[in-house]
Amino acid sequence: MRTPNSSSFVAAAVLAAAVTAADEGMWMPQQVPALADKLRALGFAGDPQAFADLTGQPMGAIVSLGNCTASFVSPDGLLATNHHCVVGSLQYNSTPERNLLVDGFLAKTRAEELWNGPGSKVWVTVSVEDVTDAITGKLDPKLDDLRRQQLLERRVKERTAACEAKGLRCRVASFFEGLSYYEIAQLELSDVRLVYAPAAGIGDFGGETDNWRWPRHTGDWGFYRAYVGPDGKPAAHAKQNVPFKPQRWLKLQPAGVKEGDLVFVTGYPGTTRRLATYGEVKDAAQWTFPRTIRTYQEQLDLLDALGKQDPALKIKAASRVAGLNNTLTNRKGMLEGLVRGGLLAQKQAREERLAAWIAADAARQKEYGDVLPALAAIEAEAHVTRERDSVLAQLFGASTLLGSARSARLVALERAKKLDVERELGYQERDFPRIREALERAQRALDPRLDQALLGYWMRHAAALPAEQRIRELDKLAGLTPGMAKADSDAAVDAYLARLMAGTKLAEQDARMALFDKTPAEIAATRDSFVDLALALEPLDLQVREAEKRRAGAASRVRPRYAKALLAEAGGLVAPDANLTLRVTYGQVKARANAGDGVDWRAFTTLAGIESKHTGEGEFDAPDAELAAIQALRAGKASGYVAPELGDVPVDFLTTLDITGGNSGSPVLNGRGEFVGLIFDGTFDTVASDYVFDAVRTRSIGAEVRYLLWTMTEVDGAHHLVEEMR
Amino acid sequence: MRTPNSSSFVAAAVLAAAVTAADEGMWMPQQVPALADKLRALGFAGDPQAFADLTGQPMGAIVSLGNCTASFVSPDGLLATNHHCVVGSLQYNSTPERNLLVDGFLAKTRAEELWNGPGSKVWVTVSVEDVTDAITGKLDPKLDDLRRQQLLERRVKERTAACEAKGLRCRVASFFEGLSYYEIAQLELSDVRLVYAPAAGIGDFGGETDNWRWPRHTGDWGFYRAYVGPDGKPAAHAKQNVPFKPQRWLKLQPAGVKEGDLVFVTGYPGTTRRLATYGEVKDAAQWTFPRTIRTYQEQLDLLDALGKQDPALKIKAASRVAGLNNTLTNRKGMLEGLVRGGLLAQKQAREERLAAWIAADAARQKEYGDVLPALAAIEAEAHVTRERDSVLAQLFGASTLLGSARSARLVALERAKKLDVERELGYQERDFPRIREALERAQRALDPRLDQALLGYWMRHAAALPAEQRIRELDKLAGLTPGMAKADSDAAVDAYLARLMAGTKLAEQDARMALFDKTPAEIAATRDSFVDLALALEPLDLQVREAEKRRAGAASRVRPRYAKALLAEAGGLVAPDANLTLRVTYGQVKARANAGDGVDWRAFTTLAGIESKHTGEGEFDAPDAELAAIQALRAGKASGYVAPELGDVPVDFLTTLDITGGNSGSPVLNGRGEFVGLIFDGTFDTVASDYVFDAVRTRSIGAEVRYLLWTMTEVDGAHHLVEEMR
Repeated sequence: MRTPNSSSFVAAAVLAAAVTAADEGMWMPQQVPALADKLRALGFAGDPQAFADLTGQPMGAIVSLGNCTASFVSPDGLLATNHHCVVGSLQYNSTPERNLLVDGFLAKTRAEELWNGPGSKVWVTVSVEDVTDAITGKLDPKLDDLRRQQLLERRVKERTAACEAKGLRCRVASFFEGLSYYEIAQLELSDVRLVYAPAAGIGDFGGETDNWRWPRHTGDWGFYRAYVGPDGKPAAHAKQNVPFKPQRWLKLQPAGVKEGDLVFVTGYPGTTRRLATYGEVKDAAQWTFPRTIRTYQEQLDLLDALGKQDPALKIKAASRVAGLNNTLTNRKGMLEGLVRGGLLAQKQAREERLAAWIAADAARQKEYGDVLPALAAIEAEAHVTRERDSVLAQLFGASTLLGSARSARLVALERAKKLDVERELGYQERDFPRIREALERAQRALDPRLDQALLGYWMRHAAALPAEQRIRELDKLAGLTPGMAKADSDAAVDAYLARLMAGTKLAEQDARMALFDKTPAEIAATRDSFVDLALALEPLDLQVREAEKRRAGAASRVRPRYAKALLAEAGGLVAPDANLTLRVTYGQVKARANAGDGVDWRAFTTLAGIESKHTGEGEFDAPDAELAAIQALRAGKASGYVAPELGDVPVDFLTTLDITGGNSGSPVLNGRGEFVGLIFDGTFDTVASDYVFDAVRTRSIGAEVRYLLWTMTEVDGAHHLVEEMR
Repeated sequence: MRTPNSSSFVAAAVLAAAVTAADEGMWMPQQVPALADKLRALGFAGDPQAFADLTGQPMGAIVSLGNCTASFVSPDGLLATNHHCVVGSLQYNSTPERNLLVDGFLAKTRAEELWNGPGSKVWVTVSVEDVTDAITGKLDPKLDDLRRQQLLERRVKERTAACEAKGLRCRVASFFEGLSYYEIAQLELSDVRLVYAPAAGIGDFGGETDNWRWPRHTGDWGFYRAYVGPDGKPAAHAKQNVPFKPQRWLKLQPAGVKEGDLVFVTGYPGTTRRLATYGEVKDAAQWTFPRTIRTYQEQLDLLDALGKQDPALKIKAASRVAGLNNTLTNRKGMLEGLVRGGLLAQKQAREERLAAWIAADAARQKEYGDVLPALAAIEAEAHVTRERDSVLAQLFGASTLLGSARSARLVALERAKKLDVERELGYQERDFPRIREALERAQRALDPRLDQALLGYWMRHAAALPAEQRIRELDKLAGLTPGMAKADSDAAVDAYLARLMAGTKLAEQDARMALFDKTPAEIAATRDSFVDLALALEPLDLQVREAEKRRAGAASRVRPRYAKALLAEAGGLVAPDANLTLRVTYGQVKARANAGDGVDWRAFTTLAGIESKHTGEGEFDAPDAELAAIQALRAGKASGYVAPELGDVPVDFLTTLDITGGNSGSPVLNGRGEFVGLIFDGTFDTVASDYVFDAVRTRSIGAEVRYLLWTMTEVDGAHHLVEEMR
């Protein structure tokens, strides 16, 4: 890899004497050397520089699965990740006779390993290059906001295309609010196979009931193997493919960890918003989240009522219900942490400190004085139309039929452009297969009655929009006017919905997929009712997206300096927000006092907890083989995986590690870079750490390596894999 | 009171040097002086002799409500107990406009205090007399087992009648398996009125979800006042009645308790079986409890299915469902503790120790050598017919119609006897009003469809009984034979049930109550189908009851000596099993480490937990007034009820106090005998302590006096009551 060294913040970080408090931070690998003092204070005896080498040990072993992380644990391409990250493969490979989701799977030989199917990829990061100058250099300050943003995007597209020409998968990612840009190049392996996953009674023990909770007893692991062509190069799935030989793999430490140990997580965290302004977080807490909680709950109630009418509808709605519920739970947790947990007040204090720091010095005043007011002004502008914009977005999201029509038009319009680089980000040649796949997949959950219910729900919202924020095209089509009596607008919406449903063929897979290959004019010519609606909304849709771009352009003049001020005020050592790039976070194995009123959490759970939670039903149904193994242990069978201080095999453990979605499947490493567990969850009351890190309460949950090894040897008979990892 | 001193075990207790481990023991008040060393080691500075004085301080303040305990807390007869103990009064006094169960109640003046209705009594223990000699002395050893038991029962009835002639309510109770008998005389106060109960959002906060659980946040208190005639004597409810003036009342200690404090509970615990033999406990764990769990679950499933067919039926079945569920939960907890918790193994070890102690000495061998084998033989005899006996009992219990017919016949048969003392225990003059009341009350939950379903359930069990344990009379009536194919016996049962239901009028309240006033012959002459069935079962019913009496008579030759051996082996200081008589238990305010795998429990919860549990719905709906008071506190309003070490008002607390059902409403006293809280629950995993005390895990939960006082002053405006208690 090329080590980035041109960016100002990294220089600042390396020079920084101050070390930030607690364990906050999903650090870029190259920032780790600057954390040396802090790490040494926690007992780190290794070379922090090692983390900065993306192809060295241990970073070279850490790969992305897209939404999850995994790590190589053998020279033959064996990958360890979470059980909940291999669910797609278990689903794909299940048959009516053999439900792998319930029973788990173990390949006794390489030949038995099962292909995950298309879409399952492994990305190995091979280089990270600082491209800040190429993206943000020499921007004509006279460009208006829209053109400025368009130019920035064009540069990103050009860099990406040039990089991918080398046969890699590339991405130009913004760090620190656009202060820096990095180009990340990854090897893409497309033949990924299922090797081992425990039964649901281990891998998902506790299910939804225990989700986000401690004490936890989930054996949340699964194993893949990456395959390549006989020539060792990435290749499509084929029988003659051979295991990928990674340059680096992790060594398992069968002694596990103990309380107080320094631990690392290396992985691909998805999104955090910790560098957002106080105004943005306050707005999320006071407007966005309460609105989401209310409207998502109402949509769930609607779907619940529909499901009661018809069990088939309930099945169709299941994934949508799960999605709504996930977001609902997450947003409730966010709100709880921000408001009740006091994190919003912390954020306010932090921003006030920043403002005071800027005001305290004339030079700073000159460099950063305009930053906070300018960001507030951009935000205020967005608020003017946010109700309308949010309802418009929800209309597209609520209806698969409308969303498909819109998607097909967007693809067709962009495809009509000659040069790929001219096309909108996300609608380039490289994106078309993904979009088509999503359209195809949508059929499983499609039922016109669901569309009608949810579209009706959001159209009622549209009907109630204030006069200055109307969706005029919808008003015209449905016969709505501002201030209309609710009974009248409801009737108008229902009548329009009936016309819409009667005039569409898009619920049929073939008709919907056919749209995808048409030109913009051909799509319009279908005169399908949902195409008509999409066409009517298209100008407003474009206007909203352009306004967003304009605001992004305006922000690109200010946000990087805001981040620079934040960094400078903090002494330089700040981690950038998560953006699905490779990161390192460190922390400790640690209990939590006063985790709830009247309750302390210990750092470890043990097999004893499985025995006491096991009911033999539903989410608490440990396999007989595991119960028998526990009984054998209790009866005196020796095991090297018993922790003497616990008098039992450790199952899960608590750490202060700072993680978020995307980190799932990440290995937990000890101070010597050895694999000691798999991180798989956080605790509910620290969900809000995605916005403001809670240094006191944040805990993440890992499955301990000794539970993994004990289960593999005593329960699942996966000795050959344990041997392979040795 | 007359202090008992003739009984051998009390002498042994006073002389005992050895002190038993942990805090086990619901001690008889007169045993407390013998605990002096133990109490002093826990910091007790008072005179243990004080507890032995039933009319002194604090024991004179402790009264029974029947199923609950209460204590006088003012010179004007104000009584503190649990919220869940005043639910009957809240129900009785609710109107369609004013649901006291939800909103709570506060009488601003004495005139506003609400009569609890008939049946609500307060019993003040005025004397306890050792009557062992009178009951067990001079028994002709040549009497057969049945006559021996009948004589014992006759003596009990004679003593009771003589005592009650003095205008008191009396009871002769057996202690230590019949080794001692005491006659307890109580003043009965019949005019009891509701003074104050918080809203359900405080008094039942957490509801079923938190039941048996920690952390807990229930304000489980309610206040009554006892009234007497203007002459100060017990009187029926009347407007001109005046508050009872107790000789003793407790003083509230507004400083509450802190971790490690010595605390007492004084009250009327119901039933424990800790002196049962290992064989009896093993049998409960291996036969009775699993059978109960299975059959109760199946009955619940039946009732659930019926409730789904008809909501009205669901309401009728509610109290039955609640009862089945309670027992089910309790038995699961018992089984869990006995088997998984290792208590059964402890019991076994203890009995082996006893057997070894007996065998180790020739004199002991002579005195006690026959005891354990004899008890085992009596138990084995009961096993021969236990399946049949249990099904017979369940038939009577499952059907209100059958149960009523049986009950009416039993009453009529006993009433026909000339002398009250000749009548069976529980079927004497003094019992008739209670039996009639129960028959009347049963109407609320009566629905022939429920009777039919549950009776059918148990008749199917009867059909499946082994050939040597048939209920022959039922076989004849329903046309059942042993070994019949299930489909045939099911059809026979259904046909018989249809005939039964068609031939009865007992579902009508008037017809059912009319039975109660008839002679045995008049009842038989009704030829009601359920009367016919009850008559057919009567000989077997009598036979079973006589067999029980014969076994009791046999046991009365052995069990007292078994208890004597237990006492001697333990050095004399053992508490007798709970039997609804006044007891004292001591313990400490104490957290619990490793309460669950990965979890420790703190000793206190605080208002913060109410804030975080509050959802505004269902069982977690704290009143607005309370939330406002918490907010005021958070905003800086001073309160003397904040515990400095917690930085908040304590809500509930954990203690090692040994309690059981009947202790509900008991005051928790500090080492100076001051009121510091109300005990109201135990924790689920120590339910089995009723059989074998779990010295490590047992915790009971109290509501802290500071939460009580804070709520009364800051939330409910009950200043006048706080003033009265000062």
